[in-house]
Amino acid sequence: VTALVRALRDICGAQAVLEERSDLEAYVTDWRGVYTGTALCVVRPATVHETARVVAACREHGAVVVPQGGNTGLAAGATPLALSNAVIVSLSRMRTVRSVDAPGCTLAVDAGCVLADVQETARAAGRLFPLALAAQGSAQIGGLIATNAGGTAVLRYGSMRSLVLGLEVVLADGTIVDGMRALRKDNAGYDWKQLFIGSEGTLGVITGAVLRLFPTVRSSVTALAGCGTAQAAMDAFALLNESLGETLSACELFHDDAVQLRCAYDPSLVRPMPASPWYLLLEAGSSLRSLSEAVEAGLERAVERGFVDDCVVAGTSAQARALWEWRESISESEKRSGPSAKHDVSVPVSAIPAFLERAASAVVERHPGVRVLPFGHAGDGNIHFNVLLPGDGSVDAASVNATVHAIVAEFRGSITAEHGIGRYRRDELPEHRSDAEMRVLRAIKHALDPDGRMNPGAMLAI
Amino acid sequence: VTALVRALRDICGAQAVLEERSDLEAYVTDWRGVYTGTALCVVRPATVHETARVVAACREHGAVVVPQGGNTGLAAGATPLALSNAVIVSLSRMRTVRSVDAPGCTLAVDAGCVLADVQETARAAGRLFPLALAAQGSAQIGGLIATNAGGTAVLRYGSMRSLVLGLEVVLADGTIVDGMRALRKDNAGYDWKQLFIGSEGTLGVITGAVLRLFPTVRSSVTALAGCGTAQAAMDAFALLNESLGETLSACELFHDDAVQLRCAYDPSLVRPMPASPWYLLLEAGSSLRSLSEAVEAGLERAVERGFVDDCVVAGTSAQARALWEWRESISESEKRSGPSAKHDVSVPVSAIPAFLERAASAVVERHPGVRVLPFGHAGDGNIHFNVLLPGDGSVDAASVNATVHAIVAEFRGSITAEHGIGRYRRDELPEHRSDAEMRVLRAIKHALDPDGRMNPGAMLAI
Repeated sequence: VTALVRALRDICGAQAVLEERSDLEAYVTDWRGVYTGTALCVVRPATVHETARVVAACREHGAVVVPQGGNTGLAAGATPLALSNAVIVSLSRMRTVRSVDAPGCTLAVDAGCVLADVQETARAAGRLFPLALAAQGSAQIGGLIATNAGGTAVLRYGSMRSLVLGLEVVLADGTIVDGMRALRKDNAGYDWKQLFIGSEGTLGVITGAVLRLFPTVRSSVTALAGCGTAQAAMDAFALLNESLGETLSACELFHDDAVQLRCAYDPSLVRPMPASPWYLLLEAGSSLRSLSEAVEAGLERAVERGFVDDCVVAGTSAQARALWEWRESISESEKRSGPSAKHDVSVPVSAIPAFLERAASAVVERHPGVRVLPFGHAGDGNIHFNVLLPGDGSVDAASVNATVHAIVAEFRGSITAEHGIGRYRRDELPEHRSDAEMRVLRAIKHALDPDGRMNPGAMLAI
Repeated sequence: VTALVRALRDICGAQAVLEERSDLEAYVTDWRGVYTGTALCVVRPATVHETARVVAACREHGAVVVPQGGNTGLAAGATPLALSNAVIVSLSRMRTVRSVDAPGCTLAVDAGCVLADVQETARAAGRLFPLALAAQGSAQIGGLIATNAGGTAVLRYGSMRSLVLGLEVVLADGTIVDGMRALRKDNAGYDWKQLFIGSEGTLGVITGAVLRLFPTVRSSVTALAGCGTAQAAMDAFALLNESLGETLSACELFHDDAVQLRCAYDPSLVRPMPASPWYLLLEAGSSLRSLSEAVEAGLERAVERGFVDDCVVAGTSAQARALWEWRESISESEKRSGPSAKHDVSVPVSAIPAFLERAASAVVERHPGVRVLPFGHAGDGNIHFNVLLPGDGSVDAASVNATVHAIVAEFRGSITAEHGIGRYRRDELPEHRSDAEMRVLRAIKHALDPDGRMNPGAMLAI
């Protein structure tokens, strides 16, 4: 037992420090199961003060800190790799709801609170916490902030950055910074919390947050539209965005190939609109009583204009679920189909059709045998331009990534719209950012973590 | 003529460099006319490249840079004071609209574009740029970003921070950082642009921005409600916020004293609801066709619940304007009434009634002869808790500020919700922020402006 482990036990109690290889396994393996790293130990502080002392002890003993929430990230941002001296600081014991302010629409929580619990807490208070994503049963608020998580309603509510009003963090030297303010507006000084949102654990440990809540959505409408081309689908989006305005909360785009893929695994399913190569899944919601008329009228106009060929509006919540499943099942279908090259790119919303065309032709031309499977949050400009690889291993995922990301750069897009840089895309970042911008990133890192003790190797090379 | 002035003339042309005292006057006096400073000269670059060379030349010749937009800020953030070597870099010649993307809902502009022109550009493209404030005929986009401007529709659209997708800046060493991305989502690295939003010119010069546009609002409803107490007014807000949800764009609170004050200066006016001490001015808008039913129903329920005593819904846009004028005329009335102590505080929305009560009783008790005149963006928690001072000079505005800000601190509020720190509130900031937080602010400043050349004395003491 090292002096550091003894110190951590003193701070948090012996049971809060995990050292056994079998205990560590879940913490050193990333959510996708791609990477397995190593750590000196996992420590699970129960309070912000324990966290601060843990970080200070790590510093004192020359260890580095890798903060970890639910470990559901998709970029291996919380997986210590090639580090001989990493302590994983798990926030999982810090799951207290500190306060709920229903009329003020705010909620103060510990960083370890699980997203599904936060949603439920808001619901019980007659409010909505709009962040929703697949991993919500495990993902923790701190990790969701550190990765600026997106999810299904970014179009209307923004990503985590728009949902955080206040933040409490522990800096690399163990200092607690208490910014747990429940303010909708605050222009007093640099908004430093913005740096921690999306910082992937590289600037400090997020220990608490004040979140924004919203009025409950009373009427919501889900609809699926079949379109002849991606351009027609995006024209339909633009038209519906204009007519539905503030009520539009999701606009998901996917191709009939994805539908066919799913049908191949479940022959009992019938393709909803076999004549249309592209699908647009829409969701609109309102605190107002009825919206379906407006949605139906908007869709009618899109049909009249020739943007939409056919459409269906869910009449029941079961029908709505069934429509959503066409979108949500894609990853599972993709997984079952074999190896793939995944992407999480964004381009300007209006450039989506051109991007899809350019990227698809480049990929197919340069990498014979692949199939493109693009889908994603089209209303946000975020496309998971995934590519199915031939089973014979003849095509390397990294080379497909390079092809796609080069096209993304032509459109001034981002190589990661929501998943983050982490360790997956770290070495690609400098290719997609100017030297000036990389200097700014490094200056920020150095300002807040001068000794490089916070999650080294994530986002920026060591 | 100094070597620096010669260098600036070489870069921008002789006519772009102002040295005459009479030419400088408008640039060295703040919008409120409270402060007058001094500057070596004003330089008006025409492009980002000229701006970069100007900043580099200032550095080379040992001068400091004070960026200035429309000079409409309310915190003297752009007024060089106690600086013997300041060059004012005015962005006023950089007013090109770089590109408009109507379907993608983005607009790329030079920093010197005037807000009213940007609104008009959006309108001409069938879109809405929702930022609106009193100085919109002069205020420039760069300054509005550097101060994270708020305005009348923050409740629905957020402040400038929510409206900026991309940013181009010149750093203190003259490096251009091009982050002009038109992306709704981007998690690639620290979101450094967030630091420049609200940086008050202390980290660099903002030269361009990509802004978010929104669908046009088709139906909008303005209503005025009279309420018996501030708590009743905020209860009405909570109820209407819940029933109107995403459509609510403004909720302004003011007291009958303000109405009476205006009536005193214009005896032809009749107080709208003389029996109610508090007024709530509401605006809701929607891309949907008709909203007025929903607004009327919500108000009816607020009446039934006893939150609202009486109300009127504007039937025409002239009526709507007349209702807004009750709110917008307050500053003018205040000015005409004599000296006052101004505040721009925010507290959690639900704490507004308690804050108003505590602050009013503290102010009246400690400063005999004053009258409180609170009003503001209640839906955002932002109250201009202004205090009319006796004409005999017996009460000092600074001591009233101290009283009010101490109460703000009790509520974990902010001493400036929208106007910023600038030089007005600079020396108060450390009293309202922890040592840890001040260290973070200074670390950020040092990381990006190590020699202290960017707007020294604004936000942070030199």
